[in-house]
Amino acid sequence: MRLVSFEIAGVAGRTRHLGALVDGDADIGTMVDLGAAARCHLARAGATPEAARRIAAALVPANVTAFVEGGAPTLDAAREALAAAIESGWETDPTGAQVRYDTRGVGLLAAVPEPPLLRDFMAFEQHLHNVYPRLGREIPAQWYELPVYYKGNPTAMGAHGDDIPVPSYADALDLEFEIAAVVGTGGVDIAEEDALDHVFGWTVYDDFSARTIQSQEMAVGLGPAKGKDFLRGHVLGPCLVTVDEVPDPYALTMTARVNGETWTNGSTADMHWRFEQMIAHASRGERIRAGEVFGSGTVGGGSGMEQDRKLAVGDVIELEVERLGLLRNRIVAPTTRSAS
Amino acid sequence: MRLVSFEIAGVAGRTRHLGALVDGDADIGTMVDLGAAARCHLARAGATPEAARRIAAALVPANVTAFVEGGAPTLDAAREALAAAIESGWETDPTGAQVRYDTRGVGLLAAVPEPPLLRDFMAFEQHLHNVYPRLGREIPAQWYELPVYYKGNPTAMGAHGDDIPVPSYADALDLEFEIAAVVGTGGVDIAEEDALDHVFGWTVYDDFSARTIQSQEMAVGLGPAKGKDFLRGHVLGPCLVTVDEVPDPYALTMTARVNGETWTNGSTADMHWRFEQMIAHASRGERIRAGEVFGSGTVGGGSGMEQDRKLAVGDVIELEVERLGLLRNRIVAPTTRSAS
Repeated sequence: MRLVSFEIAGVAGRTRHLGALVDGDADIGTMVDLGAAARCHLARAGATPEAARRIAAALVPANVTAFVEGGAPTLDAAREALAAAIESGWETDPTGAQVRYDTRGVGLLAAVPEPPLLRDFMAFEQHLHNVYPRLGREIPAQWYELPVYYKGNPTAMGAHGDDIPVPSYADALDLEFEIAAVVGTGGVDIAEEDALDHVFGWTVYDDFSARTIQSQEMAVGLGPAKGKDFLRGHVLGPCLVTVDEVPDPYALTMTARVNGETWTNGSTADMHWRFEQMIAHASRGERIRAGEVFGSGTVGGGSGMEQDRKLAVGDVIELEVERLGLLRNRIVAPTTRSAS
Repeated sequence: MRLVSFEIAGVAGRTRHLGALVDGDADIGTMVDLGAAARCHLARAGATPEAARRIAAALVPANVTAFVEGGAPTLDAAREALAAAIESGWETDPTGAQVRYDTRGVGLLAAVPEPPLLRDFMAFEQHLHNVYPRLGREIPAQWYELPVYYKGNPTAMGAHGDDIPVPSYADALDLEFEIAAVVGTGGVDIAEEDALDHVFGWTVYDDFSARTIQSQEMAVGLGPAKGKDFLRGHVLGPCLVTVDEVPDPYALTMTARVNGETWTNGSTADMHWRFEQMIAHASRGERIRAGEVFGSGTVGGGSGMEQDRKLAVGDVIELEVERLGLLRNRIVAPTTRSAS
């Protein structure tokens, strides 16, 4: 499934939904609301509308983290309801709610709107070859010894289509083109050979960065902070694609375009550190949990700084990953007091 | 109030409670369960037991983050219920649940068991004077330009009294003696002069660190990762002390003892960066939220590495901060597959 989180504004305020994209893409496509489909499916099997509402809310929740936490019981119920909705052509559920949505009529959210944790690694060697000489450094030997990461800010996620304001304290933003794994079943001390079984799905990730303050911060030694932490600084989307749709996560082409011009052609095949190594490493002495996000780090050439290019206000960034879809955002001028 | 999160094991499984310490301390003391007190108070005012249960669960929740999110409506209701419970001497609530608990009979949790975000700063200049020369570096000029931080792992918090296992990949643990502010009312672009109004309370913080891997990681530039991320790596407690009980957060003595021997005598007066600066800085272009934790960074001399001392398995660390209480933990041997 290609899962899409979205919001609908109505007279009763905004409501959160989780859809499966069944036709087209996130820009022009059709989604089945999995909660509504589950309510139809439960009602047809004999549940009252109120019981269908209650069971569907628990079994097929609209919150992605809760959905992933549901494990196979939730995923199986969602698949079954989705198949029934496609077969039956349901338009409304027993409570009168809409089942199918045009992607153009909804507010898309991040593929994982509130991950419990976001770790961002640095897996592509070419990125380091491009970056460290520009910082006047060689690639640190330690990078080859263990998969390092910093932790992003999971409370300020951005979505496909969002405008990304340059923070007021920054002169510009840069992009960082990555893919991300979303943890399904959690665990502790996970063996590398089992680690990919702990992945629920994949998505495209743009780790927007404010370079001037980032380099100030990194000079002190604690890693990036406000260089990455700002409204919509981490963008995941448009879809959370379940693992069954990605036979080989290490054979995906990655293409970045800015205002239609290709800036990057890469592939997940070039990852030096693999997700199974990152997951095994992160889970040492610690429980990783459903819904956590593991970022790959920037693909070689997947940022402006590697190419001595800068993004300007108005620039439109498109990051496309084979099988995962296209993530588009636009840089806009700083805003104040609008972070939400 | 001195808020204490705790669990009770019963025939219906473990239940989460939020208490206010009314007598003694976290080791030998008495707590009033704020939820039970609220149920008593609501029932006396005419609510049925079931309605009292429902209203208290929403108004005075046992989850600290939810409690803080409740703002003044929750804090006022909790204070009122607590005063009534002390005055009335209630023993059980209308559902038959216990109102008063001996701290010795419960399982203490971290002062904030699941913060949405944990930022840890480096505010004490003396700590840098002690540390950077040992790393063969001068204090970076950038440290004086802005309050840097790394983000901790809020999914693996430890509590007062917990045994802290040395991670299997580490040879030893070190302590880092800090205090922490817990955000009350959130906000974006908070002015420095308003920032302390956004603090809900204070607690003691031990940021346990695995030095060897931490220095490997920091050499790459992204800051610490598995040097800080492991089971119970961040310990907050024993209490979350509301701001009204701390007239001046910059006049608190800080004393660390290991196996009874004093290792550190410090004071929050020595903070170069103040919490109002950290909060103003972090909230630039980003919304900070109720329940987030801001760590001060290590007080001067508040770690073993600054003193060329190492902690061993079996060592008992006591961190005592005036008005905030005493946080005690013991280092234990590595365990495998027990992280929970």
